[in-house]
Amino acid sequence: MNAEIIAVGSELLLGQIVNTNAKFISKGLAEIGVNVFHHTVVGDNPERLKKSIEIAEQRADLIIFTGGLGPTKDDLTKETIAKHLNTKLVQDDEAMDSIEAYFQRTKRVMTENNKKQALILEGAKVLPNDYGMAPGMLLQQEEQYYMLLPGPPHEMEPMFTHYGILAIQEKMGTIEKIESRVLRFFGIGEAELETRVESILERQSNPTIAPLAANGEVTLRITAKHTSIEEAKKLIDKTEQEILHLVGDYFYGYDETTIMAEVIKQLEKEKLTIACAESLTAGLFQSEMASHSGVSSIFKGGIVCYSNEAKVKLVQVQENTIEQYGAVSRETAIELAENILQLLDSDIGISFTGVAGPDKLENKPAGTVWIGIARKNKPTKTYLLDLASSRNGNRVRTVKYGCYYLLKELV
Amino acid sequence: MNAEIIAVGSELLLGQIVNTNAKFISKGLAEIGVNVFHHTVVGDNPERLKKSIEIAEQRADLIIFTGGLGPTKDDLTKETIAKHLNTKLVQDDEAMDSIEAYFQRTKRVMTENNKKQALILEGAKVLPNDYGMAPGMLLQQEEQYYMLLPGPPHEMEPMFTHYGILAIQEKMGTIEKIESRVLRFFGIGEAELETRVESILERQSNPTIAPLAANGEVTLRITAKHTSIEEAKKLIDKTEQEILHLVGDYFYGYDETTIMAEVIKQLEKEKLTIACAESLTAGLFQSEMASHSGVSSIFKGGIVCYSNEAKVKLVQVQENTIEQYGAVSRETAIELAENILQLLDSDIGISFTGVAGPDKLENKPAGTVWIGIARKNKPTKTYLLDLASSRNGNRVRTVKYGCYYLLKELV
Repeated sequence: MNAEIIAVGSELLLGQIVNTNAKFISKGLAEIGVNVFHHTVVGDNPERLKKSIEIAEQRADLIIFTGGLGPTKDDLTKETIAKHLNTKLVQDDEAMDSIEAYFQRTKRVMTENNKKQALILEGAKVLPNDYGMAPGMLLQQEEQYYMLLPGPPHEMEPMFTHYGILAIQEKMGTIEKIESRVLRFFGIGEAELETRVESILERQSNPTIAPLAANGEVTLRITAKHTSIEEAKKLIDKTEQEILHLVGDYFYGYDETTIMAEVIKQLEKEKLTIACAESLTAGLFQSEMASHSGVSSIFKGGIVCYSNEAKVKLVQVQENTIEQYGAVSRETAIELAENILQLLDSDIGISFTGVAGPDKLENKPAGTVWIGIARKNKPTKTYLLDLASSRNGNRVRTVKYGCYYLLKELV
Repeated sequence: MNAEIIAVGSELLLGQIVNTNAKFISKGLAEIGVNVFHHTVVGDNPERLKKSIEIAEQRADLIIFTGGLGPTKDDLTKETIAKHLNTKLVQDDEAMDSIEAYFQRTKRVMTENNKKQALILEGAKVLPNDYGMAPGMLLQQEEQYYMLLPGPPHEMEPMFTHYGILAIQEKMGTIEKIESRVLRFFGIGEAELETRVESILERQSNPTIAPLAANGEVTLRITAKHTSIEEAKKLIDKTEQEILHLVGDYFYGYDETTIMAEVIKQLEKEKLTIACAESLTAGLFQSEMASHSGVSSIFKGGIVCYSNEAKVKLVQVQENTIEQYGAVSRETAIELAENILQLLDSDIGISFTGVAGPDKLENKPAGTVWIGIARKNKPTKTYLLDLASSRNGNRVRTVKYGCYYLLKELV
């Protein structure tokens, strides 16, 4: 089965928002062996939407629409598809009930325009909306499938995951399965990694290997096709071993994991607690750590010592350390890491101090960063970074390097 | 001039990454009065790319390609377009020089496959790449324009902003201008806001008004067309006044501003410093504040008191306050805000303590959040939130509510 995803919404064409829905749906479809060959974005314009549908019908069996199911006047997806397919829009009573229930639950007043959301294409299978009002739907006409999903990601994502995928698999029956695995690397550039594994890349057919660089990381997606998912996995295992034999030093994890998630896993495994003192990152490391639920067993908290005043008053860095070496120095990084460990009695203390940019600081160029890692009864280690990204690119990379050095410390 | 943006890359169709490039380019084109009617995403497949080009040629004067200019084997955009247009690929010496310079600058070894990036379409205007190796280009054939841009956003965005926009404007000459302004609202739902301004929405033609809800905020984009940009602005001013007359209470800023940026503006204007104690947000507020350069004059830093231990040891909250009322309580929020103000001698202290979720805490449901705002010589204020989003949705909304209440405090 081949699919095309059509996102409907002028806000996308005006550059107000990013089409994250296409990514989310594509990932889900890849996992069940549906090929996605095109994404299309079209505005809230019935004529252009109709033309886009006609083009998609030429090249896809399954057309998935996102957006335009809402209560407002520019939401026209259902209406346009109904007209194109000569089907009626009928009220779905369950949808109407759940819309009314939604307003009671959220203690808000239901306005007239919300009722429009209970209309569905006649004959369509309804996909319940557990986080909003507009129901989704899947309609079959001969060999062509039309799935309509709401635009807001917090409504669309659970709907697609819990109801959409299953509805598609029902229609598919069994076909060749696609198994896919992403290997994640940090600390090596894309071209260098590719050159190192070139011999493997050159003879790729099944599995295929797709390299990708983003946010200072490189990933290799290994994708194998086979009627048996087990056989597909074996093909991937073999290729993975060959790749890791060549560039395993930079490998840190699989698929959707993050380097922070791997750090948390290791800390939990070794039952070690961590505390943090952040200057240029100003809470980014700790906020990202706390974005994972259940970290309270390993994460104690820390200090955002953005100002030198905070470094001295809160983290008790010696004033003359800052005077003599500067806030951006190995010496300050060491005191920050060792003191935060002491203050919160943690097993590990990590510190970040540097120049985020765009301007120089203490006559040190933007991108100059010191990371300190202190451990109980072990010598404190420091690392110097020389980053070349934007202010926030430098802050994000600093956090990733912190995780990278923590992993080297722990694994 | 009408444009279509074609993003080339199987990683997009596999759901590995989001097409942020289309958003960025669309926004830039809207600002110079170029209509974008379609975005297309197609994989690293010459045949399908060729077909997508043929479709785009039917409906757009300007086709902008992103991706597929890199050094690797699956980068085929230039080659496919050259074949489609019967033009040659020739080496651009300046591009070759800057590629070699790039490798010297970043102290990395140049591999053979990088030379491929210096090839350009014969007769194309080169768009320099200041942050990477692959140059962009703009080629004209009769009345059809083809712009090729690299895929990585940190290379594409500055290239498009500094060279791409100008190259397009040169080709355009003068046409009807589009002026657009976004009004940003917080603390009101989309349907409610729309109902309130329905009378204005109903008679919209020029300017048009596009509502959008995202991350707990609602925006209204007012867009006017006129040969004179001044006249277009007057049309927008008039509509804006009518809208703010009805829902001005929830308005906080224009266009790309964020509620955090508005808080920073006010703090700088009133020369007030701020310090922060964050429990559930764990540094998110401070990290977002520090993502703006030059905040050191108003932002002193603070404490991530994720654990109760950190609340007591670092922020000096009374242990019996936590025992008696819990960490998630008005009383703890007050002590956190007042103590962090004291500790860093700031004018304002803000605190966040609550249940991010998914699990309950102290028998309080996920989404229960207390915000405290302390000021020198003023009574401390507290605010209770009852959020219904995911763990990180709740953390993000908590930070926005903190900003919202700070603005009410300051403006």
